[in-house]
Amino acid sequence: MPNLNICPESLHKASPKELERLAVEIRRKIIETVAKSGGHLAPSLGVIELTLALHSVFHSPQDKIIWDVGHQTYAHKIITGRGKQFNTLRQYGGLSGFPKRSESVHDVFETGHSSTSISAALGMALARDLKKEKHEVIAVIGDGALTGGMALEALNHAGHLGTHLIVVLNDNEMSIAPNVGAMSDYLSRIRTEPIYSKGKEEIELLLKKLPTIGDKVFKIADKLKDSLKYLIIPGILFEELGFTYLGPIDGHNIQLMKRVLERARRTKGPVLIHVVTKKGKGYKPAEENPNRFHGVGPFDVLTGKIQTKSPVPTYTEVFGKKLVELGYNDKNIIAITAAMPDGTGLNYFAKEFPDRFFDVGIAEQHAVTLGAGFAASGYKPVVAIYSTFLQRAFDQVLHDVCMQNLPVLLVIDRAGLVGEDGETHQGIFDISFLRPIPNLTIIAPKDEAELEKALEYGINLNAPVAIRYPRGTGIGSGKIISNFTTKSEVLKNGQDITVFAIGPITYNCLQAAEILKDKKINITVINGRFIKPLDKETIIQMSRQAKLIVTVEEHIVAGGYGCGVQEVINEEGIWTPVLQIGVPDKFVTHGSPNLLRQHLGFTPEGIANKIYQYWQQILKKKAAN
Amino acid sequence: MPNLNICPESLHKASPKELERLAVEIRRKIIETVAKSGGHLAPSLGVIELTLALHSVFHSPQDKIIWDVGHQTYAHKIITGRGKQFNTLRQYGGLSGFPKRSESVHDVFETGHSSTSISAALGMALARDLKKEKHEVIAVIGDGALTGGMALEALNHAGHLGTHLIVVLNDNEMSIAPNVGAMSDYLSRIRTEPIYSKGKEEIELLLKKLPTIGDKVFKIADKLKDSLKYLIIPGILFEELGFTYLGPIDGHNIQLMKRVLERARRTKGPVLIHVVTKKGKGYKPAEENPNRFHGVGPFDVLTGKIQTKSPVPTYTEVFGKKLVELGYNDKNIIAITAAMPDGTGLNYFAKEFPDRFFDVGIAEQHAVTLGAGFAASGYKPVVAIYSTFLQRAFDQVLHDVCMQNLPVLLVIDRAGLVGEDGETHQGIFDISFLRPIPNLTIIAPKDEAELEKALEYGINLNAPVAIRYPRGTGIGSGKIISNFTTKSEVLKNGQDITVFAIGPITYNCLQAAEILKDKKINITVINGRFIKPLDKETIIQMSRQAKLIVTVEEHIVAGGYGCGVQEVINEEGIWTPVLQIGVPDKFVTHGSPNLLRQHLGFTPEGIANKIYQYWQQILKKKAAN
Repeated sequence: MPNLNICPESLHKASPKELERLAVEIRRKIIETVAKSGGHLAPSLGVIELTLALHSVFHSPQDKIIWDVGHQTYAHKIITGRGKQFNTLRQYGGLSGFPKRSESVHDVFETGHSSTSISAALGMALARDLKKEKHEVIAVIGDGALTGGMALEALNHAGHLGTHLIVVLNDNEMSIAPNVGAMSDYLSRIRTEPIYSKGKEEIELLLKKLPTIGDKVFKIADKLKDSLKYLIIPGILFEELGFTYLGPIDGHNIQLMKRVLERARRTKGPVLIHVVTKKGKGYKPAEENPNRFHGVGPFDVLTGKIQTKSPVPTYTEVFGKKLVELGYNDKNIIAITAAMPDGTGLNYFAKEFPDRFFDVGIAEQHAVTLGAGFAASGYKPVVAIYSTFLQRAFDQVLHDVCMQNLPVLLVIDRAGLVGEDGETHQGIFDISFLRPIPNLTIIAPKDEAELEKALEYGINLNAPVAIRYPRGTGIGSGKIISNFTTKSEVLKNGQDITVFAIGPITYNCLQAAEILKDKKINITVINGRFIKPLDKETIIQMSRQAKLIVTVEEHIVAGGYGCGVQEVINEEGIWTPVLQIGVPDKFVTHGSPNLLRQHLGFTPEGIANKIYQYWQQILKKKAAN
Repeated sequence: MPNLNICPESLHKASPKELERLAVEIRRKIIETVAKSGGHLAPSLGVIELTLALHSVFHSPQDKIIWDVGHQTYAHKIITGRGKQFNTLRQYGGLSGFPKRSESVHDVFETGHSSTSISAALGMALARDLKKEKHEVIAVIGDGALTGGMALEALNHAGHLGTHLIVVLNDNEMSIAPNVGAMSDYLSRIRTEPIYSKGKEEIELLLKKLPTIGDKVFKIADKLKDSLKYLIIPGILFEELGFTYLGPIDGHNIQLMKRVLERARRTKGPVLIHVVTKKGKGYKPAEENPNRFHGVGPFDVLTGKIQTKSPVPTYTEVFGKKLVELGYNDKNIIAITAAMPDGTGLNYFAKEFPDRFFDVGIAEQHAVTLGAGFAASGYKPVVAIYSTFLQRAFDQVLHDVCMQNLPVLLVIDRAGLVGEDGETHQGIFDISFLRPIPNLTIIAPKDEAELEKALEYGINLNAPVAIRYPRGTGIGSGKIISNFTTKSEVLKNGQDITVFAIGPITYNCLQAAEILKDKKINITVINGRFIKPLDKETIIQMSRQAKLIVTVEEHIVAGGYGCGVQEVINEEGIWTPVLQIGVPDKFVTHGSPNLLRQHLGFTPEGIANKIYQYWQQILKKKAAN
């Protein structure tokens, strides 16, 4: 198959047939690549025709196309000169799975989290007007992302200003899970109720006849005419917000889309084009199961069979199943997700207890405060959100949960390195933004068995609790019986050096201890378990005994667990040297988690090496003193 | 005047006249109290009748009333048994200016930041239905707060679920500044265009006559009937989102509101009542200048004259005026506020450069990403948001600004203790959540002159910068000529102990040095100035020389500036003891800033004392070794 080295300008001259053919080729390329590398297949397949239409009508990068939640940009990447490298997708050093300004001038804004595109587009459109330039700014946003609060803030502002910009609403009737929300219901009505999309001519005819009815109603005819838009324009909600609404149109008909895009270009003020697409379009397994093929690992192209995963259940599954068990015993448990029932493992709970399960759509802020509302009414809400997405609800965790000391259990999946999704999805900030919050308990179990215990503990604490655990699998559930207490756990005793670790990286520290043993260095390894409150007693005792304290966390160093340990040491007026091992002050790129861990020195060898080097330095200084 | 010891149940029996009289008394009480204590006068005056109507119809606390941005709850506080203590409002140990669960069972949810009430109310309404209880849940939300993203997320979810709850939209045509946004335009149309609120009967008549027009249109008559709601229901936007819309009604007519509230109670599903109120109602100076009387200091009741402030300009004014100066020299500077042009000092810029000024409404997330859009287009956006409200835009600062390394200047006013507004408004978390973000420069000027220099520096760095400074006045602008560099500044040299301080508290450290001098302890005082990147060279040099390092910040200890200094020390493998002075792991209550600083030990005496105690401890330990 061809390398698809397309230049976007060539699309302007392409015939309809050529564009169709290109769509087929791009589709094949995406399917074959993602089958090997994994990635966001279904969303990218859904927008191939839309991407071709956009690049045929507009002149990127003079015209700015901003892709909301950029995992729908595979076709865009191929079209804008990255066909050759496309097989490096999501691999370390290869193409990012999201738009990257450093990758191409055609990636004008980076988008990893949802609902940002209209804000960025409005900024660019206003900038254009100030500069008196003439180019288009287009935000492409899914119906799921449109329910995120900041997208609505931006719509509200854009509609008010009346600045010309084009919002393409890519309505595929689902974001990751089937969509929820009144906005989604509304879009569905537009698509299905004939009154919305038909009847325009009939109503115009009616209008012409109106004056003949009688004097009494004559005077309201004008008002009626003004109000006619309510009858003939389907997108009245958007019209009320100041947008010109065009649609709904078939998002797989390139020529139709080109015509509507041209019309949008000629329209003054903000325009919203409602495009209806099919997620997974053109690849049967993905069309039939778009949820499964949203973000997917390697699969067999012919059968659509996804590579069998490790027989060990993931942390997500361990959580999901444990919550069901807890749910049977405690009728007060409520589960809340922001559009990710499967990703968070809440699908198990949802199936068992549909009445106590709430999917709020892509709306993390609302999810957390909804939980706070439940908690204020005597329930035990479990709000499950990935580490990276919880960044959206920081203020709500702080004010609505912790300031009121309400028993909301925050379950933070994908904490630590997530791998191929890269910079925008690494879960390496949650400790820094959660640890300063008073009243919050933060737990990082070292393995699955401890996760289960932490959940039992968290559900029953009657106070705000956050539990963080990583993507993927651990050592296997049930292999280690955790004697779970709020104290930290001494896993191995040694002299001179004490390591405090949290989360599964604790096991790497145990292995590092073996490596160091060979170098005649015996270290103590402690499973910190609680990030907050800290087991001060053990920290104080250890920092009095040891000649070096090491903290290890799969998290950025600044403000992380290590800082917490250090704060305790400082409070106590002890001055033992402390080595803080964690992610340095840089964003972490995409690549396999193992590779990233190697690069960051989080492997047993890496940790042993860091401790060894630092220890030599300490010994040298001690000798010099 | 009476103590107004009202019990809310008594209102149910009150006659219309008695309620009117009560409104007058409550109004007088609020005006007289706020004239002494300062507070949120205009919003509280606007909802007195609404509060009386709510408590006359509903039975609090069985029925749950949640007040969005709780500064409108003064009448609610008086009605629910807190009339006697009302004169302690916003004072240390007295009544909070916001709802507090610990204060009264009638304060069912705490709200300091905007737009949270519908989420919390929905959680409570769903909890009620699960328990099969029968009570009402009412969220009272302003039109300004309604444009905040999470309020729209909640509306969207509530409309979809169809759960019965009542949202009272308190439309006063402004939040703090005049409202912006298409939603606001929309509400304004509802209020003013007759087609929205009248014509119902005329249109019904028309409908009856329709079938006589002719066969061709006959068949669409049914559809037209279905669509009639577009003509006769003003709040179609809310109806489309699944709410029953009632209104607009006069928010100062208690009897009318009681009738509509009763009707809302009988209505199935979610109901939105559109109440139109006048901000500052009943107090002429506040009615005429609601903006000025939104949050106000002490004033003269008779004349409405606000107590003359200190002749020293506030930090806010220094910033506002400096930005105008910079704006003249650099046409690329853009200013963005989230509904607080006056509060942030951007009003000066707005007046001078209206084309380059954008008020986005209460929408911090959008504000930051709009700035990122401008920055991606070559502009230099300045986004001015209070420390506490920036918590709402953490993810946007991280992703949309810093991950893309875009030159957005974040101006963070009210960083540190804010005083009377209390827990929800203290600016004590910003360093913890900003410091871990790669690419971000963070500056905390020690005085006004340094703020001006920091602004010049930040505008020209061509990278993300945050500048934090406190509420109120400093030492006076121009008194100290700062030699502004990225290095920290040694203000005073001493032996043994080195203090690194950031922000105006640095001056307290200088005074503390004088106190300690009397105790024969000579300390070095350094103005840290840059929180990120840190002046590593000086920190390393000092921690090698000194026997004790002290860090001082008006910010929570966990993850703060002190942690940053400590991280540098640890990186270097030095083990000097470090005392971190800052806010301990507790929320900080309301009270005058001076009083709070005394309690927290941030006065010169307090700082000197903390250093002295710690130093004695260190000396003892050193002697013991």
